[in-house]
Amino acid sequence: MASNIEKPYVVGMDIGGTNTVFGIVDSRGNVLASDSVKTQEYTEIDDYVEAVCKKLLPLVQKFGGVENIKGMGVGAPNGNYYNGTIEYAPNLPWKGIIPLAAKFEESLGIPTALTNDANAAAIGEMTYGAARGLRDFIMITLGTGVGSGIVINGQLVYGHDGFAGELGHVIAERDGRVCGCGRKGCLEAYCSATGVARTAREFLVARSEPSLLRNIPAESIQSKDVYDAAVKGDKLAKDIFDYTGMILGRAFADFIAFSSPEAIILFGGLAKSGDYIMEPIKKALDENVLPIFKGKTKLLMSQLKDADAAVLGASALGWEAKALD
Amino acid sequence: MASNIEKPYVVGMDIGGTNTVFGIVDSRGNVLASDSVKTQEYTEIDDYVEAVCKKLLPLVQKFGGVENIKGMGVGAPNGNYYNGTIEYAPNLPWKGIIPLAAKFEESLGIPTALTNDANAAAIGEMTYGAARGLRDFIMITLGTGVGSGIVINGQLVYGHDGFAGELGHVIAERDGRVCGCGRKGCLEAYCSATGVARTAREFLVARSEPSLLRNIPAESIQSKDVYDAAVKGDKLAKDIFDYTGMILGRAFADFIAFSSPEAIILFGGLAKSGDYIMEPIKKALDENVLPIFKGKTKLLMSQLKDADAAVLGASALGWEAKALD
Repeated sequence: MASNIEKPYVVGMDIGGTNTVFGIVDSRGNVLASDSVKTQEYTEIDDYVEAVCKKLLPLVQKFGGVENIKGMGVGAPNGNYYNGTIEYAPNLPWKGIIPLAAKFEESLGIPTALTNDANAAAIGEMTYGAARGLRDFIMITLGTGVGSGIVINGQLVYGHDGFAGELGHVIAERDGRVCGCGRKGCLEAYCSATGVARTAREFLVARSEPSLLRNIPAESIQSKDVYDAAVKGDKLAKDIFDYTGMILGRAFADFIAFSSPEAIILFGGLAKSGDYIMEPIKKALDENVLPIFKGKTKLLMSQLKDADAAVLGASALGWEAKALD
Repeated sequence: MASNIEKPYVVGMDIGGTNTVFGIVDSRGNVLASDSVKTQEYTEIDDYVEAVCKKLLPLVQKFGGVENIKGMGVGAPNGNYYNGTIEYAPNLPWKGIIPLAAKFEESLGIPTALTNDANAAAIGEMTYGAARGLRDFIMITLGTGVGSGIVINGQLVYGHDGFAGELGHVIAERDGRVCGCGRKGCLEAYCSATGVARTAREFLVARSEPSLLRNIPAESIQSKDVYDAAVKGDKLAKDIFDYTGMILGRAFADFIAFSSPEAIILFGGLAKSGDYIMEPIKKALDENVLPIFKGKTKLLMSQLKDADAAVLGASALGWEAKALD
């Protein structure tokens, strides 16, 4: 721990398809300063690294320079923890296998660890949030996609190749909706923000009852619109949440049969719909879980502050980054 | 390791609904002596423990007495590793929560660890079989039921309550066949020995083509009969394996999305049907697995010798049993 006292800060970085956000974080989980670049503006990875460093280094200098930074943690789609690489990420501009951790280490001189964004969220939750003290839990991120970070025996599950925890791509409905991964019926195709919007469009076509959602052009409906309508008492909007929650609860019953976690923690936009989504999840979980597990697994909401969550989650990995030679 | 040299043997015990088998095992995985009792003959747990000890102690004496035994490992249905208990096992004569490890420790003076039978098989495979050197694998036991033992980062996954790894009870077909657990559509209802026999009966009713299986009274058909018919070229019998393998392969694709294991290892009667079951599993796995995992996870057969496997698997846990105070 002596080195933590010597080096009181870490860098957290979250790479999304649109924005890359990064910041300086202290050991209590305060994001002290942050900045961002537009991910899509850099088709060449080296230009991207240069652009990030150009904005990140002034922040680092402000907090005493590289010698005050214990490490950097990066959360990225298709991030491989073992290799520090991003591999074949469909939503990022760089194709193939990108040795990103090594590139940052070279440019910044800061030890860098990288994992996928949902794993970073799980580590953040374990370090600063709802999972403090939990040794067995599953983090489910409900955003544009559905991601997961699995912790067993207090350790992130990376699997033999670094890519474990793709719970957004278990099959929720055999031969169901086409998913972005090219297969059919994935959990993500139903329970992501876009999945909820798809359900809304399906329900609006299949039913004739009035709904506030009919005031919005079908192709423009977003999951936030469904929430707003539900809050106003819209029956069809509530049914969309019931359907989404049912599919999640059924899937969670299977996840529990796998690792029997103490808690499943929900993170992301949809999770913020509160009881509209939590009640049907609980109901379906209770109806579908194996009797031996009944009532044992808690359903929790993330405790990470929204604006900082991605940076904070990634930063927690920075404390574990291996010192450079 | 010094204490292993001082105490060169362990006891392995497998508690089944019909028989309880136990034996003395050396550090190389040789079962040096074994014996058994009929589980169902003892409705009182203390009578059962006494009966086991009466037959086990002479074996222990033969190998130099209790001071030569490092520990005892017990595999049992609904075995809870954390508590050393058997909890609400539907197929055993003792109801409620049975503190079996403590009872044996008291009677024998041998440190005792207990887990469920599939976990014991996984530990056995890791210690003596096909999983030597693997840090991430899933053991699937295809017997009267379908069980599983999951190893992640070189550790058995017990979950927060000691009951993780119930992969026989993930849902293979939503609202499908009634399962012994009281729910519908579990993997076990399709891919256990009894599940295969059910498939045979369903196929025989649904189709009119000739089959060797029609020579057997429908209610008497066993999975072994299906294998025998397939070997003789029976089309319907082969289709039963194709169907069973397809359901397993689909389920394995979901398991891989969870923990990305280096291997899935099959154990038990059905696993011995060789290519009849392995080929359709491989085909369905390949068709259903997320592209990022494609071709990465090996499908292996157990390497534990049949007669000894249960005792051997349980015995491996004996090396880890905590010394008594």
